[in-house]
Amino acid sequence: MREAGAEVGLDRWGNLFGVVPGTPGSLPPVAAGSHLDTVPNGGIFDGGLGVVAAVEAAAALRESGAALRHPLLLLAFAEEEGTSFGLGCLGSRGVAGRLPDLDQVADRSGRRASEAIRDFDPGVPRREMPAPMAAYLELHIEQGPILERQGAVLAAVDAIVGIARMSFVFQGEPNHAGTTPMNARRDALWGAADLIGNVRDAARETGGRAVATAGQCTVVPGATNVIPGLAEVTVEVRSANGELLEHLCADLVHAASACAGRYGLDVEHRPWWTEPPVPLDPRVREEVMGAAHDLGWPVVTMSSWAGHDAKILAGVAPTGMIFVPSKNGVSHSPLEETTWEDVARGAQVLCRALERCDTREGG
Amino acid sequence: MREAGAEVGLDRWGNLFGVVPGTPGSLPPVAAGSHLDTVPNGGIFDGGLGVVAAVEAAAALRESGAALRHPLLLLAFAEEEGTSFGLGCLGSRGVAGRLPDLDQVADRSGRRASEAIRDFDPGVPRREMPAPMAAYLELHIEQGPILERQGAVLAAVDAIVGIARMSFVFQGEPNHAGTTPMNARRDALWGAADLIGNVRDAARETGGRAVATAGQCTVVPGATNVIPGLAEVTVEVRSANGELLEHLCADLVHAASACAGRYGLDVEHRPWWTEPPVPLDPRVREEVMGAAHDLGWPVVTMSSWAGHDAKILAGVAPTGMIFVPSKNGVSHSPLEETTWEDVARGAQVLCRALERCDTREGG
Repeated sequence: MREAGAEVGLDRWGNLFGVVPGTPGSLPPVAAGSHLDTVPNGGIFDGGLGVVAAVEAAAALRESGAALRHPLLLLAFAEEEGTSFGLGCLGSRGVAGRLPDLDQVADRSGRRASEAIRDFDPGVPRREMPAPMAAYLELHIEQGPILERQGAVLAAVDAIVGIARMSFVFQGEPNHAGTTPMNARRDALWGAADLIGNVRDAARETGGRAVATAGQCTVVPGATNVIPGLAEVTVEVRSANGELLEHLCADLVHAASACAGRYGLDVEHRPWWTEPPVPLDPRVREEVMGAAHDLGWPVVTMSSWAGHDAKILAGVAPTGMIFVPSKNGVSHSPLEETTWEDVARGAQVLCRALERCDTREGG
Repeated sequence: MREAGAEVGLDRWGNLFGVVPGTPGSLPPVAAGSHLDTVPNGGIFDGGLGVVAAVEAAAALRESGAALRHPLLLLAFAEEEGTSFGLGCLGSRGVAGRLPDLDQVADRSGRRASEAIRDFDPGVPRREMPAPMAAYLELHIEQGPILERQGAVLAAVDAIVGIARMSFVFQGEPNHAGTTPMNARRDALWGAADLIGNVRDAARETGGRAVATAGQCTVVPGATNVIPGLAEVTVEVRSANGELLEHLCADLVHAASACAGRYGLDVEHRPWWTEPPVPLDPRVREEVMGAAHDLGWPVVTMSSWAGHDAKILAGVAPTGMIFVPSKNGVSHSPLEETTWEDVARGAQVLCRALERCDTREGG
């Protein structure tokens, strides 16, 4: 960041940032970046790509002598994955004023998040991050196979999907797996198994507009020779369409009741939380698509099926995202891969889109 | 046992026994009993009933002045439930010569079974149990709801079901629950859920001749937001018909392949063990039914869906079992209940059947 001409700071949430001055005046900065952390045993692209590309954009602009009117804010958010404190997007939530009391958030060893941030010393002065931002742009790998399957190389993201998480607890009657005739059973796993099929089918029927996953199934007592008395299934539903998300969740609650009724079971629906979809800023998306056209590359529009710092930033700044393909759709793995050609394309579109936002905001 | 005129001993497997002498001579004993142990938090009938009834039969015969020609062997087997060493029917297996090396069998604290038996001192002299036996009779609660549902009060058991235990491991591809489209998923839990339904339906279709239970389902990684890469289902199948048992197991292996194929998964079939059904002795069963008729009570024939010491003894003695109803089919619970009227009926049939075996064997 320093080599690219930025003055570097560390904000009170542990986010690293750099400011390249714009034309003297009081314009708010245009911002670009992503997160520096990754998951344990992750790859090199998830997060890091967007940070490096932002710094490269600043360096390229400096080398080309093109001066932006707005200051350029380079962002390296902390703790997007939530690995340390179980709280995703910790850094960007701080910037957006959406954090709980960090004295009450601790890691597995009991260390408080507030303490960890206080002790964090990368050798950079503590500073206030400039606010508000005129725009925030994030380049990220797709983390899915959609671009690759379409043969596309770039996407402008129109929205970040909403997520609903819940569990269903089926209650039957634990009993002897030998002496209880089939027609005298109330097997909780029968209801759970039917629901798992319903979750799959309900999402499939949306034709790509939603996904749904039963990621965990817990059986009690879980013995080979005891009829399951209780079975809990966790369900996650995602869609960029808030209404569809709500409908799907309601459908699954009905389906669970039907599954339970079929076998004389009780079922309890336990909603954990729902985050509605977040639309990104259409004007920023226009600049991303314009940037791709300026550079002669085809670009598609898609929703992001994963969460990102951009989802949080969208609450406080006009926000856009650029996706580049993930080989085989793999991420959060050492096998995570994006070709250097795709990486370069993404970085150049980011740089060009920043220039376009700089012009537009003033124009 | 002593009050009933028996000489009491403890054999080398920890089984308590008593011998009431018969007419002087060299006839082998007729035997009756069950096990003294029960599961943690169990009821008062499972096991204890058959021991107490055998002692009561000896006492009643003594009081009535009816002397048997055969010695009467009263049996209180140790460790039928397998609670201490994970080895069911430990005591009766010892008698039948079907035990592994007890120096190699240990409880959770690491104490060897051989050591536990050596240290066991109920104040009874160590003796060799008489062998062989002319017959073995066991009164037990049904542990299921079949007699109650039929309005029956007594059953002569014709066979003890065979049991096959196995697991099926479905292997798919763990992946991001958001970014992986529904049509790009290889969700291991989809295969497992379908198989759970197949297990239920296959057993139901036998019309009461078999039961099958999926008692455990384990999902890896088991996170709300990760598509299951692996799912393991344990399956237990029981039937008194050995051929049907084999067919059902083969059908489930085919069904699992079909479930896997449907979703692009691999599946591995892991058979744990199979115990074939054990038919009980038809002549002993005749004496049980004759005893009920002598006493004026209706008696039905049924298979035992649970294992018993009688299953082991059947390998070394003509063996029969008498069932009395279990209220609501409950066992292994403090709620385990059999009416005192049913208990008395079972004990009287046991006593009368012993007399009939005594006569028959000599006649």
